[in-house]
Amino acid sequence: MIHELIKKIKETKAPVVVGLDPMLSYIPEHIQKKAFAEYGETLEGAAEAIWQFNKGIVDKIYDLIPAVKPQIAMYEQFGIPGLIVFKKTVDYCKNKDLLVIGDVKRGDIGSTAAAYAVGHLGRVKVGSQEYLPFDEDFVTVNPYLGFDGIAPFIDVCKAEKKGIFVLVKTSNPSSGDFQDQLVDGRPLYELVGEKVAQWGEGCLDEEYSYVGAVVGATYPEMGAVLRKIMPKSYILVPGYGAQGGKGKDLAPFFDDNGLGAIVNSSRGIIAAYKDEAYARFGAEHFGDAARAAVENMIMDIQDSL
Amino acid sequence: MIHELIKKIKETKAPVVVGLDPMLSYIPEHIQKKAFAEYGETLEGAAEAIWQFNKGIVDKIYDLIPAVKPQIAMYEQFGIPGLIVFKKTVDYCKNKDLLVIGDVKRGDIGSTAAAYAVGHLGRVKVGSQEYLPFDEDFVTVNPYLGFDGIAPFIDVCKAEKKGIFVLVKTSNPSSGDFQDQLVDGRPLYELVGEKVAQWGEGCLDEEYSYVGAVVGATYPEMGAVLRKIMPKSYILVPGYGAQGGKGKDLAPFFDDNGLGAIVNSSRGIIAAYKDEAYARFGAEHFGDAARAAVENMIMDIQDSL
Repeated sequence: MIHELIKKIKETKAPVVVGLDPMLSYIPEHIQKKAFAEYGETLEGAAEAIWQFNKGIVDKIYDLIPAVKPQIAMYEQFGIPGLIVFKKTVDYCKNKDLLVIGDVKRGDIGSTAAAYAVGHLGRVKVGSQEYLPFDEDFVTVNPYLGFDGIAPFIDVCKAEKKGIFVLVKTSNPSSGDFQDQLVDGRPLYELVGEKVAQWGEGCLDEEYSYVGAVVGATYPEMGAVLRKIMPKSYILVPGYGAQGGKGKDLAPFFDDNGLGAIVNSSRGIIAAYKDEAYARFGAEHFGDAARAAVENMIMDIQDSL
Repeated sequence: MIHELIKKIKETKAPVVVGLDPMLSYIPEHIQKKAFAEYGETLEGAAEAIWQFNKGIVDKIYDLIPAVKPQIAMYEQFGIPGLIVFKKTVDYCKNKDLLVIGDVKRGDIGSTAAAYAVGHLGRVKVGSQEYLPFDEDFVTVNPYLGFDGIAPFIDVCKAEKKGIFVLVKTSNPSSGDFQDQLVDGRPLYELVGEKVAQWGEGCLDEEYSYVGAVVGATYPEMGAVLRKIMPKSYILVPGYGAQGGKGKDLAPFFDDNGLGAIVNSSRGIIAAYKDEAYARFGAEHFGDAARAAVENMIMDIQDSL
């Protein structure tokens, strides 16, 4: 699947993934009103508003980018109706020929990690039948529990030709609380990066491994080090745009061929219509605003490479 | 809520939580057959089998213990129907006057962590209405992203009088990959434990803080150190029974009053009927086997204190 992602990045010339992280506050009032008129101010109403919002954005941007990254927390907060729309969004995007990175950051051990892996990337057995419950193409995974938490995901990725991105250095201010702690004189995130490289050794899918990493755009100097430590791991880079990362910060995450990284923006794209730079589109045309923001992001990143 | 948990532990004399982590392979054939006859070998059929199994166990043990800990991965692997039964299980157990620890191990940052916190412990706003989507009493949380990932949970706990257990030292063999790495000569888990103590300082609910910790029964000597580092944090102790932890290993996790820790067993209770020691009950009476296993576990732990 990482090879498929790279193929799509080359086709679109866009090492860009759009985060579908819909907060209700991002969703234009006319969409919320319509959803609430139909379902009431209920969890179902919120889920319907999210669905219409996602659809409005995906329909306008799907041809520009290789992948989307729905953040499951933004759906899970609306309970079962929210999770139904998460799944609907995954399916819709795949039908639009987009790859889907489920930003689930799951992390557990043994049979529990296997259950997450099966639920999100694989197939679960029920009697003599098999089902693909959420069926994302990639998911993000938390490494705190060590290899026991990663191995079941790798097994499923191998069987299903899918992929993972392991959290190495996250984009948030307090990511240093533990990730930057020095172990034998080197920060913990470097050790995690080394392990990611090692775990991915038997997992090549053509040029890159399907065991990738998450490294925040907000820490470009660490990105440069990690790019070298994990030469075969694709890097998913959150933190561009609203979190402060800029195109010129991104070069260190890429290899010499302009590959090796894919940059995420969420709020900066899906809520672009609220930004002064795109206010001319108006809330009615939030999808067009998102498209313009994607085009500008792609140019910004292409310029930096 | 931690005070409520302690009250229930005193009433039941059982610092014990039963993990409702149903694998299909644990569920007696007669239950699976009946569920599949009604719903087919579908995700709905699997979910119905899990529901009947959970109900059969909870009905037999609810008076013996203060709390249950459903592991959400075991439900999530069956997609939406699985998650519906997760929620149904949470509600059912709360109606039986059990406290519910959602073993979700979520971990993310800022507004995303807030979404998880709201979804599992708090209330989400939809227009002028508010809903409690999953409404567990406690959840487990992953600390790898630092305080940004914890603070939103603490805020919700404060508002809703709920609680969290932060992963400090997990029970699995490879938990040492990162957790045991030495930072200034001390293992990372000690540093995480110190942070947990610090984060919980303003969070006292009578005698203990509602910012608790997870420390595996499989590492009693580390439990002794962490008990001292986090004097006000309740410790949730997984790894008893099937994972190898024994009653005599548990004393170090408790304080001098026999409080300060709650020990989880999952497979050892819910699949007790498959164990030689309880085989006399037979698969038909899996709930009675679970009750006998709970009684023995309580005695084993009481003896060790």
